[in-house]
Amino acid sequence: MTSPSGFSQRILRVDLTRGKVKKEVVDESLVKLFIGGPGIAAKLLYDEVEPWMDALDPLNRLIFAPGALTGTLVPCVARHFVITKSPLTGYFAEANAGGFWAAELKFAGYDFLIISGRSQTPAYIWIQNQSIEIRSASDYWGLDAREADRAIRRDLGDDKVKVADIGQAGENIVRIAGIMNDSANRAAARCGVGAVMGSKNLKAIAVRGDGEVRVADSATLGTEVRKLNSELKNDEFTQNFHKYGTANAIEACVYVGDAPVRNWSSNSQFDGAPELNLPGGYAKISAGIRSCYNCPVACRRVVSVRNEAYTTEEGVEGPEYETCAALGSMLMVSDIKAVAKANDLCNRYGLDTISTGSVIAFAMECYEKGLIDKNDTGGMALRFGDGRTLVDLTKKIAFREGFGNVLAEGARRAAATIGKGTEIYAIHVKGLEIGMHDPRAHQAMALTYACSPTGGRHMEGETIWVEAPPFPVPEMNLDGLERLSTKRKAETAFKVQNLWMALSAAGYCLLACATGTARPYTITRNIQLYNIANGSKLSFEQFMEAGERIFNVRRAFTMRHGAKRSEDTLPQRLLKEPIPAGPSKGSVARLDEMLPEYYEMRGWDTASGMPLKDRLVALELDDIAKDLYAK
Amino acid sequence: MTSPSGFSQRILRVDLTRGKVKKEVVDESLVKLFIGGPGIAAKLLYDEVEPWMDALDPLNRLIFAPGALTGTLVPCVARHFVITKSPLTGYFAEANAGGFWAAELKFAGYDFLIISGRSQTPAYIWIQNQSIEIRSASDYWGLDAREADRAIRRDLGDDKVKVADIGQAGENIVRIAGIMNDSANRAAARCGVGAVMGSKNLKAIAVRGDGEVRVADSATLGTEVRKLNSELKNDEFTQNFHKYGTANAIEACVYVGDAPVRNWSSNSQFDGAPELNLPGGYAKISAGIRSCYNCPVACRRVVSVRNEAYTTEEGVEGPEYETCAALGSMLMVSDIKAVAKANDLCNRYGLDTISTGSVIAFAMECYEKGLIDKNDTGGMALRFGDGRTLVDLTKKIAFREGFGNVLAEGARRAAATIGKGTEIYAIHVKGLEIGMHDPRAHQAMALTYACSPTGGRHMEGETIWVEAPPFPVPEMNLDGLERLSTKRKAETAFKVQNLWMALSAAGYCLLACATGTARPYTITRNIQLYNIANGSKLSFEQFMEAGERIFNVRRAFTMRHGAKRSEDTLPQRLLKEPIPAGPSKGSVARLDEMLPEYYEMRGWDTASGMPLKDRLVALELDDIAKDLYAK
Repeated sequence: MTSPSGFSQRILRVDLTRGKVKKEVVDESLVKLFIGGPGIAAKLLYDEVEPWMDALDPLNRLIFAPGALTGTLVPCVARHFVITKSPLTGYFAEANAGGFWAAELKFAGYDFLIISGRSQTPAYIWIQNQSIEIRSASDYWGLDAREADRAIRRDLGDDKVKVADIGQAGENIVRIAGIMNDSANRAAARCGVGAVMGSKNLKAIAVRGDGEVRVADSATLGTEVRKLNSELKNDEFTQNFHKYGTANAIEACVYVGDAPVRNWSSNSQFDGAPELNLPGGYAKISAGIRSCYNCPVACRRVVSVRNEAYTTEEGVEGPEYETCAALGSMLMVSDIKAVAKANDLCNRYGLDTISTGSVIAFAMECYEKGLIDKNDTGGMALRFGDGRTLVDLTKKIAFREGFGNVLAEGARRAAATIGKGTEIYAIHVKGLEIGMHDPRAHQAMALTYACSPTGGRHMEGETIWVEAPPFPVPEMNLDGLERLSTKRKAETAFKVQNLWMALSAAGYCLLACATGTARPYTITRNIQLYNIANGSKLSFEQFMEAGERIFNVRRAFTMRHGAKRSEDTLPQRLLKEPIPAGPSKGSVARLDEMLPEYYEMRGWDTASGMPLKDRLVALELDDIAKDLYAK
Repeated sequence: MTSPSGFSQRILRVDLTRGKVKKEVVDESLVKLFIGGPGIAAKLLYDEVEPWMDALDPLNRLIFAPGALTGTLVPCVARHFVITKSPLTGYFAEANAGGFWAAELKFAGYDFLIISGRSQTPAYIWIQNQSIEIRSASDYWGLDAREADRAIRRDLGDDKVKVADIGQAGENIVRIAGIMNDSANRAAARCGVGAVMGSKNLKAIAVRGDGEVRVADSATLGTEVRKLNSELKNDEFTQNFHKYGTANAIEACVYVGDAPVRNWSSNSQFDGAPELNLPGGYAKISAGIRSCYNCPVACRRVVSVRNEAYTTEEGVEGPEYETCAALGSMLMVSDIKAVAKANDLCNRYGLDTISTGSVIAFAMECYEKGLIDKNDTGGMALRFGDGRTLVDLTKKIAFREGFGNVLAEGARRAAATIGKGTEIYAIHVKGLEIGMHDPRAHQAMALTYACSPTGGRHMEGETIWVEAPPFPVPEMNLDGLERLSTKRKAETAFKVQNLWMALSAAGYCLLACATGTARPYTITRNIQLYNIANGSKLSFEQFMEAGERIFNVRRAFTMRHGAKRSEDTLPQRLLKEPIPAGPSKGSVARLDEMLPEYYEMRGWDTASGMPLKDRLVALELDDIAKDLYAK
């Protein structure tokens, strides 16, 4: 088939070591197998990054990929994905962010930006349609991500330029650094992708594009999209999400034991949750709503904090659910202003809020247990509940100041540096601090965290939406699940992970789609719109199979880069310590009950954890099968 | 047994991240199993560096270990070994150097110095007996290794201080950087250990010690050593080595096809070899002889180069055999002054001469074949035979200037950066540029390069000394070998590798011992002196078995850190392109003929390359067996 669609085909390569730029076209067969965007990028990473290349090696690739549909009429597809080898895990890395940057890259004419090498001096890439320049970033190095974003737009004399950049954390190769965009209000935060960008001496990627993204059948697409948009506008649930955003969930999640409290030791035991919720305490700082490119849902929060200690600039965005948990409930900080300030600092410095909260929680527990003291922390007392410490330590991490330098390496490395058995308080999988949903409260999350190619990442397949669904998802055929039961949870994790891979490849925002927040936007509709735009006829089964294929490419990368079966596990705390109170009281993550069935369903070897040859071949991943099973 | 010996028991730990110092005692059982020095250090590295820690990770350990006997009356044991994870290979790394530093560390009271972490600002470690300080090195950062050595001694006001340090190459985390000592005249060069030191922001380790190294039976040791020393003085062969050093071998090695010519493409076809030999052209610059600590052989050369382009400082040391090959015959540079100058620059900048010559040879071949041009090299023409280019490019590599920045990453990475099929001209195994002995000329070297845990390192078991022996080595029971035949070569590699591991652990200089250069210093005598000093009764078989044990610990580290069976190979050029002329004409490395027998002898799995569980257990490496075969 010669696809009439314009998407998922053009690669822009920039080699910062040699200062070379190259344009290529993606092989059409990859579009068929991997849908687009991060799906195709996973295969490109597999092919180009060898196991002997370190994450911080100049040879590591930093791939930016919008979704396949990004830049089309289709709503809620504004995200870009950053695919690379992670300096936290040493394995496959993904981070993604919403905003306007992804669409702009498409308009400039590129579906993939692949960066390799390391610039000798700080640089940024300026992409203006066909013109590509590697420019000096010496004027911007040392600025925070928001300052740099602004300065670059100013110096280019075009406020429509979209900037993705790193803050000081990325510059300092802080392993929990992310890559920011949209004036540092959006973050591709996870897996240490900002450290990879920093290791390349790359401050920013500025983009301006005037093109359009072609689709196979624009007339039909227009009709269907108009219909969908009108439904979204009239859907109560969607509008509720618009009104309150993700921070609407923190109170309920703390209640149920899903959101961590006190470094995962005291779930359900935190009175301050309503202070972090919207509506609730969050309303005190709420100052507006913002959308991503072509998103009728619009869930982004603008906040305004006026408080001597925590004042923020005008127009900055507020903490999302994950941040309310990571910097709030997990640290027992109930002051939403402190959380919002720390969130904004993370954005400016370019830090992953989940990992930042996790390493601070780790440090606070070590301190309270007497395993570290003021000699270690440079005189700081680290106490749960202390918003001031949160804000101060965030800065120290970004600048690698004093004890912040230890935490800047992430929880696993911080524990290995401190020793003394502190490893058990570092809550991570494969080196990545886990997302803010407790697998003890939703059992299938145990499989997502334990078996994810990227380590403990909730975005690899957030099962809570089908384990305790706000409304039924008929396509998944998973009705009647009980969140504390392990029954059918292997199947649940398998399906949700595959779905999320496929949806992401197409470009769908998983907050709007697939999580039940924009109800009319069903999976069936997701696939339908993709097919119209792409000129393809993927069935639900084929779409899901493409998701399975993508998941296995990521898994194969991780196994090839050294992961072992024994790393498919969870922190001891989640396996052994029951949730102490609330509706999930007494529950532990019963991973072992689910793992064998999950492995079987995935077609993975139970001894090595490696995808079996037959399954890889069945998924048309013959070259990977050959590579993994080479003598 | 409670050993009466004082050696191989004391560890000094320095954590540069936290600024902490700790002293420990090595478990006695390790001495029994691993002899001492690098033998024990291999096990410490295995236990402390996890596969997820990168080579340039602050958590990587940089272990300095003199041999077990270093600092005793026993002659020719002046070497120290640097054990770490290699940034070139990602696997086990060893580099070692002679001089006076190792003995000084022993006199200060330490058998092992284990450095972890990363200093926030440039630092050096000052070890004065029991007093340990981490000091600022900001005054020395940017100096070359010789300047820094001198400045530190001056500032400490004690010229007897011994310094090991890095030059600018290590500071710039050049992956082929080494660690220098003795006024930058001696180098622990291989495997990129200097980049590890640079990544820790550690400029130098200055040592002063006033203690003594206890031995079990000093009276008997004294008698035996006096006898040995007198024999060494009267041995013609030993005295020849004293008179001419290792550079005495280059002419013969080029002739036989052992030393590489023109990036391994034209062995035996280089008329300039006599110009590099001593006696021969080398005599023009020869200006003296120097010894390492307590070494009656004394093979170090002092040179004096007076030539506008290549003048060197007074008292610097001259190129050894490996350097005469790497910077001479391999590049077809016959001007000994250019080679001596480039050698001295490598020493000052802290570069591995073998790897430096190898990447330059790679670049010259790429240039001459038209795969790179002046646009790539910044205007330089790269021609074989051009001494000026050698000198200029050496500097560019150390400072990562222009095209030097590409080469600074080592041959494998340089080829991956350039692409265009240049990989075949990067002559390395597992990322390490191979030593200067061609496996096509001595077949067992193929096994040493292909299967060494450290990549293509000749010091992992240099078989040429038994494949074409200058005199018989009765203990090895390997008489009658033919160098171009593969007959009994598995056995040869197996025995020589085990021997070299054991001798190194004891501290014996492999140039003086085991290579036939100091004839009276037989293996039997090596073991006898070790037993007297240690109060042990190791038989030849037990000594060799300890060597096998050490080799397998190193191998296990490398396999655990991701190596595959398929990496036990050689560059295609050595497997496919016959030596074009001379006594080895027509020969290729016939690795496949030897590998199965070698694997069987080693007790390694033929599919995975992993040491088999049974063999590990037989070698009393139960914990490693458990670890490698953990589910």
